[in-house]
Amino acid sequence: MFDLIAFDADDTLWHNERHYRHAAARLQMLLAHAHDASTVERTLYETEMRNMAGYGYGLKAFTLSMIETAVSLSNGHIPSHIIRALLDGAREMIAAEVELLPGVRETLAALAPHYPLIVITKGDILDQERKLARSGLADLLTDFVVVSHKSAQVYADLLRRRGIAPQRFVMVGNSLRSDVLPVVEIGATAVYVPHHLTWEYEADVEPQAHTSSYHELARLDELPALLARLHHNHNG
Amino acid sequence: MFDLIAFDADDTLWHNERHYRHAAARLQMLLAHAHDASTVERTLYETEMRNMAGYGYGLKAFTLSMIETAVSLSNGHIPSHIIRALLDGAREMIAAEVELLPGVRETLAALAPHYPLIVITKGDILDQERKLARSGLADLLTDFVVVSHKSAQVYADLLRRRGIAPQRFVMVGNSLRSDVLPVVEIGATAVYVPHHLTWEYEADVEPQAHTSSYHELARLDELPALLARLHHNHNG
Repeated sequence: MFDLIAFDADDTLWHNERHYRHAAARLQMLLAHAHDASTVERTLYETEMRNMAGYGYGLKAFTLSMIETAVSLSNGHIPSHIIRALLDGAREMIAAEVELLPGVRETLAALAPHYPLIVITKGDILDQERKLARSGLADLLTDFVVVSHKSAQVYADLLRRRGIAPQRFVMVGNSLRSDVLPVVEIGATAVYVPHHLTWEYEADVEPQAHTSSYHELARLDELPALLARLHHNHNG
Repeated sequence: MFDLIAFDADDTLWHNERHYRHAAARLQMLLAHAHDASTVERTLYETEMRNMAGYGYGLKAFTLSMIETAVSLSNGHIPSHIIRALLDGAREMIAAEVELLPGVRETLAALAPHYPLIVITKGDILDQERKLARSGLADLLTDFVVVSHKSAQVYADLLRRRGIAPQRFVMVGNSLRSDVLPVVEIGATAVYVPHHLTWEYEADVEPQAHTSSYHELARLDELPALLARLHHNHNG
């Protein structure tokens, strides 16, 4: 019934957002002498939103927005150690171990003999490739695709290139904005697996009429049973 | 004789390095009160080399290394306007017009009816996609591939995925390190079109025995004649 199953990477296969939250908390601490935490948090988010069209997603965009936030909340001079701490934070995120979410490896191993499995992720290519390598999942995937953003057009182009009908494609991820809505929009199947830490931007979407047509799972390891059920309903 | 012709993007199809040089010159000016230009230049290059494994290539990596250079050459405190100027510099590079190199559009238009033409570039996905959109060349290309780095392995994987033998692949670019040596290494044809501004890193390669097997052109518009000659020699 399905010819291709794709997974989002960050906070779908492995933990990621918590590293960003940790870095943002450190920025709040570094600026605590002059600003309360909520001011720093709001300024960072506004800076990220303003920079998104130019920088896109990922670790380097985030670090540049952190630095810009520190500068915009500073008063003419900024202690070098603050900028240095933010650059060190980026290095820590680059060096961080990749920790898989529960049941991820087992789920992909169970599905891999039956479906081609790929990852579709956004962010910095090198950073995403590094996390893939550290995840130990590369041998279960037939492709690893890094895109600049995840729109209906991007999904449609990706499927057209591979000669796959949307009706035979499943996308699994933790972002309503990126993994669910555009996928439902092109007539494919979306499986939403919420993560308790999801970046405000990814969750901040208007519910639309067609959003009833996606499936929601509490954990990724419920996916094989869902696919079996869909297969049964389709054939039954 | 050839099934796929690929082009590097920056400084092969359009000017790019000059924007980086301009930004680096501004950093030298911003720090001129305390350091001579050659110290700033050397520190920036060393910083970029140290960060390359973590950040990869492109505009955001460059901007982060510029900021790190400014901080490492500062003395405890750094005027906010310097960091701000570097962030403004990134925004200017993002907003910059794309100027094609001489004869590029005509050359691609002449080749497009006869060969599938693609671009293989490294850097930030979003930034490279933006430059492609502004270049007006998208309609002449069948694919636009952004990779984290250009090694023999990366080229070999890309060709294997497409079912193309290396002997039937041509790569055209201005970087000996990225566009020529790894391509020659896998047995494909490399066409080197030097650009008068090439980042030190891309040119800094050890000549190897097999480097005699690439073709060098002064301008991209000499490519159709070269391909015709290779075709003739192959069949003759």
